[in-house]
Amino acid sequence: MRTVRRRIKARKDETDGRRRRGDQARITVLERAMDVASVDGFEGLTVGSLASDLGIGKSNISALFGDKETLQIKTLDASVGVFIENVITPTQAEISPIKRLHRVCSGWFDYVERRVFPGGCVLHAAINEYRAKPGALRDKVSSYRNNWKALLERTIREAQSAGEIGLDHDAQQLAFKLIAFQAASNTAALLGDKKYFSLGRELTEAAIAEAANGPRMPSPRSGSRES
Amino acid sequence: MRTVRRRIKARKDETDGRRRRGDQARITVLERAMDVASVDGFEGLTVGSLASDLGIGKSNISALFGDKETLQIKTLDASVGVFIENVITPTQAEISPIKRLHRVCSGWFDYVERRVFPGGCVLHAAINEYRAKPGALRDKVSSYRNNWKALLERTIREAQSAGEIGLDHDAQQLAFKLIAFQAASNTAALLGDKKYFSLGRELTEAAIAEAANGPRMPSPRSGSRES
Repeated sequence: MRTVRRRIKARKDETDGRRRRGDQARITVLERAMDVASVDGFEGLTVGSLASDLGIGKSNISALFGDKETLQIKTLDASVGVFIENVITPTQAEISPIKRLHRVCSGWFDYVERRVFPGGCVLHAAINEYRAKPGALRDKVSSYRNNWKALLERTIREAQSAGEIGLDHDAQQLAFKLIAFQAASNTAALLGDKKYFSLGRELTEAAIAEAANGPRMPSPRSGSRES
Repeated sequence: MRTVRRRIKARKDETDGRRRRGDQARITVLERAMDVASVDGFEGLTVGSLASDLGIGKSNISALFGDKETLQIKTLDASVGVFIENVITPTQAEISPIKRLHRVCSGWFDYVERRVFPGGCVLHAAINEYRAKPGALRDKVSSYRNNWKALLERTIREAQSAGEIGLDHDAQQLAFKLIAFQAASNTAALLGDKKYFSLGRELTEAAIAEAANGPRMPSPRSGSRES
């Protein structure tokens, strides 16, 4: 039985002992499943290998998670929950949209660098695994990707409304750049290319700084953005 | 038996009938294997399923490709060969480095859009599949990724030597941006997000145009590049 990290919190209000133990078992399985999915992919998840990894009966895992697809979906949901908890939640108290944008992006780099998941960013992993495989998992992944895009675009637009980013900047273009830098930095980190990972972080900072009003002059170029 | 597309060319100088038939069988298997790997991943390749897909004996496939890892490596090599043939080779006669850079990048978008592989860019697929799995495949993938990075960086440096890109531009930063835009565009294309795919193409054009000397003024900003 391998050591399992704790990224998922147990329900605090659970006083019934039997339900509390069920909750603990659910978390133990999910923690291990998230690591397996992060490295081997969600298709690599099986009730059998989780059971032997954890020394838990297959029937217990099936009782908690149902079939393979349900296990995959619950593992994806739990992984995205950990992503949100690590990258998004800590920024939400920040009132300034541009500072929130900056924090959520630097938080993304920290989360990959700290290896919250052994296979890097769970969202990029899942997007790449299911990009060409129609089905329930791809639909879920696609909707999570849209939420991440929407969060970045919305934050940029809020910064524009707050006068922190000029209205001549295109929110969708800036969000695309940030997501693209994350995609390339994620694989760089995992392939041990520290130089490229740092470059991704620097270019992210620079793209936000360029968009922000401040000591830096707004760029006079129009070709690199939509009018 | 499924219809197999033809992307790999047969050896033209083969006059021995038996060896020519062997060559044809090798190509038939590789063509199918490339499609399977492109969608299901290289770990999804098995001698058994290729044999039943193609109506060829398992022993014949094993005789041609050896074990599973050899099959995976030969499929990866063949896929990268097709990538080179489609994206890089057509640009090599171009003398102007900036035009070559432009053509190789727009060729990349065409190749993803035309679905040369059903799962999009084979290099991005393989990088994402093996980013966290040490072994022979990851080493190969990492070396192909380095070649692609090096090709873009070298072309940018040649453009600088030819006076087509200012020496104040950082070749590695520009190459990073181009690769990042490709990564995000690849998943956008496969998730049916045409808007984001077009945005990736536009931003690629803009990044090259911004770097190029010409009617566009060199940007006075220094924060977004290394000194």
